[in-house]
Amino acid sequence: MRFLDLIEKKKVGKALSKEEIFFFIKGYTADEIPDYQVSSFLMAIYFQGMNEEETAYLTQAMMESGEIIDLKEIHGIICDKHSTGGVGDKTSLSLLPMVAACGVKIAKMSGRGLGHTGGTLDKVESIKGFQIQLEEERFKKQVNTIGIAIVGQSNSLVPADKKLYALRDVTATVNSLPLIASSIMAKKLASGADKILLDVKFGSGAFMEDAVQAEALAKMMIKIGNHLGKEVNVVISNMNQPLGNAIGNALEVKEAIATLCGEGPKDFEELCIEAGSIMLLQAKVVSSLEQGEETLRKVIEDRTGFKKLQELVEAQGGDVQQILDPQQLPKATSIISLPSIEEGYIKCMHTLELGVLAMKLGAGRSTKEDVIDPAVGIVLRKKVGDYVKEGESLAEIHTNFDLPQDWKDAFYQSYVWSKQKVEKEKLIYKVIRNV
Amino acid sequence: MRFLDLIEKKKVGKALSKEEIFFFIKGYTADEIPDYQVSSFLMAIYFQGMNEEETAYLTQAMMESGEIIDLKEIHGIICDKHSTGGVGDKTSLSLLPMVAACGVKIAKMSGRGLGHTGGTLDKVESIKGFQIQLEEERFKKQVNTIGIAIVGQSNSLVPADKKLYALRDVTATVNSLPLIASSIMAKKLASGADKILLDVKFGSGAFMEDAVQAEALAKMMIKIGNHLGKEVNVVISNMNQPLGNAIGNALEVKEAIATLCGEGPKDFEELCIEAGSIMLLQAKVVSSLEQGEETLRKVIEDRTGFKKLQELVEAQGGDVQQILDPQQLPKATSIISLPSIEEGYIKCMHTLELGVLAMKLGAGRSTKEDVIDPAVGIVLRKKVGDYVKEGESLAEIHTNFDLPQDWKDAFYQSYVWSKQKVEKEKLIYKVIRNV
Repeated sequence: MRFLDLIEKKKVGKALSKEEIFFFIKGYTADEIPDYQVSSFLMAIYFQGMNEEETAYLTQAMMESGEIIDLKEIHGIICDKHSTGGVGDKTSLSLLPMVAACGVKIAKMSGRGLGHTGGTLDKVESIKGFQIQLEEERFKKQVNTIGIAIVGQSNSLVPADKKLYALRDVTATVNSLPLIASSIMAKKLASGADKILLDVKFGSGAFMEDAVQAEALAKMMIKIGNHLGKEVNVVISNMNQPLGNAIGNALEVKEAIATLCGEGPKDFEELCIEAGSIMLLQAKVVSSLEQGEETLRKVIEDRTGFKKLQELVEAQGGDVQQILDPQQLPKATSIISLPSIEEGYIKCMHTLELGVLAMKLGAGRSTKEDVIDPAVGIVLRKKVGDYVKEGESLAEIHTNFDLPQDWKDAFYQSYVWSKQKVEKEKLIYKVIRNV
Repeated sequence: MRFLDLIEKKKVGKALSKEEIFFFIKGYTADEIPDYQVSSFLMAIYFQGMNEEETAYLTQAMMESGEIIDLKEIHGIICDKHSTGGVGDKTSLSLLPMVAACGVKIAKMSGRGLGHTGGTLDKVESIKGFQIQLEEERFKKQVNTIGIAIVGQSNSLVPADKKLYALRDVTATVNSLPLIASSIMAKKLASGADKILLDVKFGSGAFMEDAVQAEALAKMMIKIGNHLGKEVNVVISNMNQPLGNAIGNALEVKEAIATLCGEGPKDFEELCIEAGSIMLLQAKVVSSLEQGEETLRKVIEDRTGFKKLQELVEAQGGDVQQILDPQQLPKATSIISLPSIEEGYIKCMHTLELGVLAMKLGAGRSTKEDVIDPAVGIVLRKKVGDYVKEGESLAEIHTNFDLPQDWKDAFYQSYVWSKQKVEKEKLIYKVIRNV
């Protein structure tokens, strides 16, 4: 088999066989196929797509390119949750303790953030002492004991995806649905959970621009799950404004704690309850979504979700005092309130831009080498649909340096105003269940 | 400027500016842009194409990436001729001496063949002593003295094309019209001629599969010429069977000599006269195509074309005796006649396959390192439309080793037969003049 022939085949729109796709992934992972051939192949995939079978084989080949975590020693149904990413997305920090408190086993392997926001690992690391590198045995034992663990993804997981993603990133071949779907699913499948919940986000702060694309991606990932024998459910959610109010690592931990105590932003709470009820149903802890919602509202009310977070932090060496009293989490030297210079309804927000502005404060990384400042970020005081008077605070900026004028200009430019009343967009666009 | 942004721009179908295209070619030639980015860019070009301006800028940028030959010291109008390549294409060997005999200056820089047939250089080198490496001054002086020179293309000509072509070859991005057109035209423009005649071939033995594609390529090259101020004319010709009868280097020299003496295959003579008359008109040696044809028929009749070939061979150190008595050209140890195993009309020939079979005898190279055997090849006895009885000779195979059975099988499989009479296809499909 010659890789050149596979490029040609995909270029003219033919489907590749399982054998050909495995040849590609094995050859590339083993450095036997050069980058320059793979990048033209990826661009051909961008234009010609991949059918359901091809995408499933690609996922399987990538999954099998490295270690596959075996979680059999963990008792009970293990659920995993993955978000395609957005601004202010602290869902794992609230949702996972909530469902773990209901008896679902959570063995979460997470990545770091690159780009406009920190990843889940960066967020939990704003808690003093929190260890994200656990030995595999300790990791499994913790899940068996307290029902939840959040750790860094093993470096030996899905090496093919690491190599491919790095290449896609520099060859304008990131935004191809089969490549995105297989990349996400290979990691999830290699992580060993029994059931997977995906939060596919769309909008100005997300990877997918619109709901149609998000739905196509969602369906593709469900089909991959079908082919490879894993139940996958999807929540498609709106990222046309940041999720909740806080953007920035410690600020988001604080907001996640508030949400676990019933004092968080209502949009974020809604997402946790809706996504969580699907996870409870997947894990057969409840028998209907309604029952799931009810159960989760109780978990907020009686704070068992909050207690589960405390257990998690304690088990992984974090400072529980910071959880009990979030004022003890890292704090920025200044909190600057930015007053509105307009009057009217907020029509929309350039969410990605707000993410980038938080990154510039130090909340995210623009290169792998950047060090995250856990304390800094943005807390929104107003959101889409709110009526704002001139001079009213739009947001609080938590910063460790003076805000440059161009930062402020960009901040104001990320709001679009309307004199007419603006309907709030629904946070959850659709739930797709694989039943 | 970031090259990644240019890939993205082309991927979504936008036109690149002159500045962007020069950035690409300069950066790639200087090894500042990596292969893996260029190959995904090339694949994006394959799918999105390039408009007229982009293709002209690409040609110009490539042309300016290296040495540009200055032929001002040569008196008179200098014409160049280029064929997109085919099987048995010995046109330069007959056509160029014919037009040179009429007073057109021919400063021909040629390449070697890679793949199924030898290039013009390989063919002239089957003449003992023929030197294809001439100092630039000697080259120009020879054109001024005898009106013709055929030399190897300078290594410093169009380095961008060399690098790009090598990459396209291994990334399935060869067959993109703007990439083909700019590659050919950059070399022709850098070679310094005043007027260019292109022979664009289509069919089972050519680069372009059909006449529609060939015409699109032809028009694109004419437009590039317009943009960059060079007159380009095109003959579109049929390569659904080998040109003439001989395939193989010395065998083709022999056939070219016969044609110069009025004793060659009629299809090949026709192409030389039609293409030659355009060159005479381009060079203002005649005032109409009819007059051109008449002039060239006389050049055959009175053998002044043949004499010009002798002068050329002598000037470049070749053995003129071999030209006067072609029996002295390299000869294979065996000439094997292959009899037809069918009876009927030849409907078509898999021309590329015949080229590959000649290559396997030693007439072409499958890798750059292969050494060509000038003596070997195939001489067809029957062509498309001919009625052949079982046992009649289809071809003579000139070989220096026994023909393996699979070679013979492949030979017979490259003929398609018909019981019904078959119309002969016209050799010249169309002439497109840029007037």
